[in-house]
Amino acid sequence: MQTYHDCIPCFLKQALNAARLATSDTAVHEHVLRRVLSDTADLNFNQPPPLMGQRIHQIIREATGSADPYDSVKKHYNQLGMALYPDLKKTVGQSDNPLETAIRLSIAGNIIDLGAAESVDEAEVTSVIEQSLTQALEGSISAFQNAMAKAENILFLGDNAGEIVFDRLLIETLQRDHITYVVRGGPVINDATRSDAEFSGMTELVDVIDNGTNAPGTLLDQCSGAFKKAFDNADLVVAKGQGNFESLSDADPHIFFIFKVKCPVIAAHTGCPTGSMVIHEKPAK
Amino acid sequence: MQTYHDCIPCFLKQALNAARLATSDTAVHEHVLRRVLSDTADLNFNQPPPLMGQRIHQIIREATGSADPYDSVKKHYNQLGMALYPDLKKTVGQSDNPLETAIRLSIAGNIIDLGAAESVDEAEVTSVIEQSLTQALEGSISAFQNAMAKAENILFLGDNAGEIVFDRLLIETLQRDHITYVVRGGPVINDATRSDAEFSGMTELVDVIDNGTNAPGTLLDQCSGAFKKAFDNADLVVAKGQGNFESLSDADPHIFFIFKVKCPVIAAHTGCPTGSMVIHEKPAK
Repeated sequence: MQTYHDCIPCFLKQALNAARLATSDTAVHEHVLRRVLSDTADLNFNQPPPLMGQRIHQIIREATGSADPYDSVKKHYNQLGMALYPDLKKTVGQSDNPLETAIRLSIAGNIIDLGAAESVDEAEVTSVIEQSLTQALEGSISAFQNAMAKAENILFLGDNAGEIVFDRLLIETLQRDHITYVVRGGPVINDATRSDAEFSGMTELVDVIDNGTNAPGTLLDQCSGAFKKAFDNADLVVAKGQGNFESLSDADPHIFFIFKVKCPVIAAHTGCPTGSMVIHEKPAK
Repeated sequence: MQTYHDCIPCFLKQALNAARLATSDTAVHEHVLRRVLSDTADLNFNQPPPLMGQRIHQIIREATGSADPYDSVKKHYNQLGMALYPDLKKTVGQSDNPLETAIRLSIAGNIIDLGAAESVDEAEVTSVIEQSLTQALEGSISAFQNAMAKAENILFLGDNAGEIVFDRLLIETLQRDHITYVVRGGPVINDATRSDAEFSGMTELVDVIDNGTNAPGTLLDQCSGAFKKAFDNADLVVAKGQGNFESLSDADPHIFFIFKVKCPVIAAHTGCPTGSMVIHEKPAK
């Protein structure tokens, strides 16, 4: 997906929010703003938005001297996810349709996204979980179920820390021996990396690889050879979150994008209002 | 007032909205965005926000080749104001406190601001007029009334087309022989210029001068010598709208700023929530 003109003001807002989360030093905030402004002035708008997201957080890491300003935030959301896990597991187990319930909860977990929001509190997560069980879902669960049943080599692209616990629930309801879970190759925003996969128990459940890069999405040009091989060999890809949708909406494989619509640009692009829960099937090219 | 970091994303949003209002050519939108990004990267944040507002609209005029992209919009709002005028005049006349009612309506007219909003429809104007008659007002009307009664040389700085009709109502309830009304020196957004003063009947009521420049506020450095002389000689200044507040909040004279709070930055700066009606007195230095 291209970068839309409406993404530009949002990049600046995200940069400012992220800089403020990383440090209270207003001189750093100003430095970050000026560098993002300058870089965005020359941005190739044909590239997907996560490219600029990656750049913004690289600038923030350089300006703050912190390799992972979101480290404690990610731990917090992982702990929150693990605290909610036993009840969520029961909810799935007691459901008439455990797969649908697990998908719904996995989408609910996608609310833990500090790229789209300044902060997400526990009450909001709980409220979104509650809503997610009954809210209309855009897309076909049975199409997803059928594709999953047939596929022999499934790549599941994760999104955020905290959310990864919700993905674990979904993967536990699937045939897990066919699934490889993918995390980012390095810290960016609160996106999940290998340590989050370890903390959430994902590494004990399925093979976990990283994509070799630190964009808040999956920018294939930048990904490692090992990831690209896994991506090309997969007969089905499950991709969580807006960032993966933005970066892979034109990719080759058969993909199910699973996410919450979090901004007006994606709402206009998908035709699903902001707040929608989406399971969007993209056929193989 | 300085330019706050939170103004930066908003500049980009305003630039995009304004470019879209001026033309449907997306190549022009992109050109405007890139130039605003580049200029903002080097902006002096100690300057007030209207400086960048002025720059944005200069870029749009250059990119579209249109000297006044808002010409028809201004005419529309002037006509709307004139259509509402007879009823508003009655409302003031029948009020127990005509001055307070006229001030409230003048603040209501400040909603017609295309710098802060993408568009303002007639229903919104009518609804804001209705609310303005009873909504809490931040500041002292009696302090304003006392100062107006004493002053012998009052400069009334106008703001937008359409809104100028509401200012006419207020000026009609005041001792008009002491008042000079000021419009912008050239077109910017939907700000009032001399032709709007003529259309609204303001020129028949009081002396009307322009400030010699085309910023959406009053940037004294840029104003004409004639305006600066009038500004220095005034013993009281009435300044309508956020743009005048942003550019004159540190100026020398005794000023009453009369405006609606339209953004979180001004809300934080003034301590009055967004949507507040404000009559803010700044003593002479």
